[in-house]
Amino acid sequence: MPLNTVDKAFETQAHALGFDLNREIKIGGHYVPVIAHGHVVYVSGQIPRIGDQVVVIGAAGAEVSLSQAQLAAKICALRALALLRNQLGSISQIKQVLRINVYVNSACDFTQQSEVADGASDLLFEVLGEAGRHTRTSVGVAQLPKGATVELDLIAAI
Amino acid sequence: MPLNTVDKAFETQAHALGFDLNREIKIGGHYVPVIAHGHVVYVSGQIPRIGDQVVVIGAAGAEVSLSQAQLAAKICALRALALLRNQLGSISQIKQVLRINVYVNSACDFTQQSEVADGASDLLFEVLGEAGRHTRTSVGVAQLPKGATVELDLIAAI
Amino acid sequence: MPLNTVDKAFETQAHALGFDLNREIKIGGHYVPVIAHGHVVYVSGQIPRIGDQVVVIGAAGAEVSLSQAQLAAKICALRALALLRNQLGSISQIKQVLRINVYVNSACDFTQQSEVADGASDLLFEVLGEAGRHTRTSVGVAQLPKGATVELDLIAAI
Repeated sequence: MPLNTVDKAFETQAHALGFDLNREIKIGGHYVPVIAHGHVVYVSGQIPRIGDQVVVIGAAGAEVSLSQAQLAAKICALRALALLRNQLGSISQIKQVLRINVYVNSACDFTQQSEVADGASDLLFEVLGEAGRHTRTSVGVAQLPKGATVELDLIAAI
Repeated sequence: MPLNTVDKAFETQAHALGFDLNREIKIGGHYVPVIAHGHVVYVSGQIPRIGDQVVVIGAAGAEVSLSQAQLAAKICALRALALLRNQLGSISQIKQVLRINVYVNSACDFTQQSEVADGASDLLFEVLGEAGRHTRTSVGVAQLPKGATVELDLIAAI
Repeated sequence: MPLNTVDKAFETQAHALGFDLNREIKIGGHYVPVIAHGHVVYVSGQIPRIGDQVVVIGAAGAEVSLSQAQLAAKICALRALALLRNQLGSISQIKQVLRINVYVNSACDFTQQSEVADGASDLLFEVLGEAGRHTRTSVGVAQLPKGATVELDLIAAI
């Protein structure tokens, strides 16, 4: 099957971020990365992991800069797309991203959670175009799994 | 088109809070304030902004009192309704609010997030009646965009 | 009506945790514990309350151990199931849990939110089997209502 435009855009973004799509994304335990119900698909919270390593760790506004946190958000969004690609066969099956939640590990006085989330929003638009526009909530949290700087989850129409 | 009861209730609440409905609610970037899919509509996270200004800033339990935080929650809920009115033409198109998430910028020892969220729940009920009853999650977060005291997002059936 | 397998599994778990199913789960105010829309049901955020008492309070990684926090997550999941049982008549009406959000009241340096959430994921799987598998987001928050260690909400297909 020839790759369509959005799949190619996805691979370009993945390659640029050093993301190896041939490695399995492993999630353990009694939960799953993706569930589809009717025409709606839910993706579990993603942290900026590439291979086995969480690549951006720490609080934005303290040990992590805004641009590093934006990169973290991009990687989270890319992982969500990679999981959808595994599940659906092609990114082009995504009709519309409906919602993303962006949780930013934040220093007490860091208030640029929206700017961090722009990293994810931009990536979704670059890959999916209009289908990548979404509603969004971004908040600053006290801590995240494995000390990650960002966690992102997603709901999409397929 | 004559305003129906819920639209009038909405305007009354908006007026009481000093909310100017003729001003555009601007949201920048590659995300959107509202997306409808089938009979479900998603609204992006709202902070207590009136015009260009975030009117309640800081941590509840520290520089912000419970009643100020409740006001912030009310304004967030009002903004969500204003966005739905823009999208749907009338508030009466909302058949049921399904879910609100209320994120409260909280001092370490502040545990009245539910009481803060009551500000939003009460407003939704005052405007929409039974259609305004909803499920709800309220949590205390470390920080919010622009230092806002409350952020609220919403899912509704239309 | 004879109890089916999942209802029995639920009662076994409830009994093991000291949960009295004959006591009404009360939620006040202008919101409700459960709303169904079409084939999707939303459950409000639950804290680890048994009867009138929140049984696990405080920050994980500070005054609360990992295993206590996992117990808190289990109780939250159990409460969500109890509410669904009240609404639907039987736990077996749940076709698939679609999403859980697990908010963990966390000390600054506590990064095992996923391990805490496993308490909830394991319970859902023990009670519901394959229908209990779900997507999941777990984050560390600054504080929760009544000082609870965990808050959990849920979306399921029925």
